[in-house]
Parts: sequence; C-alpha cells; structure tokens
Amino acid sequence: MKKIKVKFWVEDEGEKFYGPGPNELLKRINKEGSLSKAAGQMNMSYRKAWELVQRLNQHAEVPLVILKKGGQHGGGAEVTPVGLEIINEYESLQKKIDELVDQQTDLIKVLK
Amino acid sequence: MKKIKVKFWVEDEGEKFYGPGPNELLKRINKEGSLSKAAGQMNMSYRKAWELVQRLNQHAEVPLVILKKGGQHGGGAEVTPVGLEIINEYESLQKKIDELVDQQTDLIKVLK
Repeated sequence: MKKIKVKFWVEDEGEKFYGPGPNELLKRINKEGSLSKAAGQMNMSYRKAWELVQRLNQHAEVPLVILKKGGQHGGGAEVTPVGLEIINEYESLQKKIDELVDQQTDLIKVLK
Repeated sequence: MKKIKVKFWVEDEGEKFYGPGPNELLKRINKEGSLSKAAGQMNMSYRKAWELVQRLNQHAEVPLVILKKGGQHGGGAEVTPVGLEIINEYESLQKKIDELVDQQTDLIKVLK
C-alpha cells in the first residue's frame, strides 16, 4: 500500500532546531517532570537529552525547559509556559499537514 | 532566522518510493530526454539513476520512464504520461504544503 509521509521541523540559521524528537522529549518531560525518565522512555541517554535541552534553551528567546538542581540526575525538570505553547503550535501544524495530506489522494491514485 | 522546513515522500509498503530525488530525476529526464544527462546534472552515477528508474517502474502500476535502446548509455529516455502526471501531482502537493507552512507563523513567533 502506498502512503504519503511528511516530516517537518524548525531550523535556526540552517541548523535543525525543533522537530519530532525535541517535541516528544518536551512532552515526556512535561508528563514525567523528570529529564532522566523522559530520556529513558525514548531510549536516549541522559547526557544526550540534557544536551538537547541546553540547545533548545539556547536557541529560543526564553528557556523551554527548566532543570532543577538536587539529587542524582537532577531534581526534576519542568517545561515552561513557552515550551508548552511550542508543543501546542507544533502539534497544531502537524494536524493541519496531516489533514492536507489525507485529502491529497491524487498522487497516490496516479501511483496506484 | 528560524524557518519551518518540510519534506514529504511516498512510501510503498514502508519503503521510500517517490520523493524529492526521484521527482527531480524525472523532471530532468523529461527536459533532457537522456538518463545520463539527467544523472550527470544531479551528480548521480548513471548506474544509480538507472537503478532508481527500475525501482520506480517496478513499484508503479505502469512505467514512469521508458529507456530506449541504442548507443552508449542508451538511446534516450522518455517520461511517460503517467510519469508526467506524477510530477504534476507531487509539485501540486508541494505547493499546498508550502502555502500551509507559510501561513503558520505562530510556531516561529513563539520561538522568535
């Protein structure tokens, strides 16, 4: 069966900045309140997840995630209001693109 | 500056089948009437382009490109009417996705 697949992301000065991976990480941090739990669920090392959060925070005007100090692997993580807004906007665009692609059956029809 | 980038392609049973690369190859074959010229313009080896054409023709119900025999590197290549239709449908969807993304300034605004 043929199917149209779409991937989108936000670039900053030509560098990938926000896409499916960061969006999933932010959602899991928001749900779990913990960077290590979020990373674990995505089979990502704590270090890689930590670096991703640093990069997101550096590229955005305000931090998207706040890491709290304390204990092993930090004392919890919190997605900021701007971070939550970004998740919403990202998923809203995802939905619109999915709807558009679902309507475009012509390409699939021609390919059969 | 932040920018939303989108990539889309058609999968056949989970395998990438038609995307930006095949679309460009088909367009160049149609313009040049030659697989080797089209491949050369894309810095693709003749062999790789030939294999791509075989794969496209196998996955589609009818051939998208007809390779004519004769001479070195074949006697020319022709995109079939169905192949031309696919180029059109693909670029029409590309345009619609681009328009949708251009309207979605909220995500960029939030990220600043």
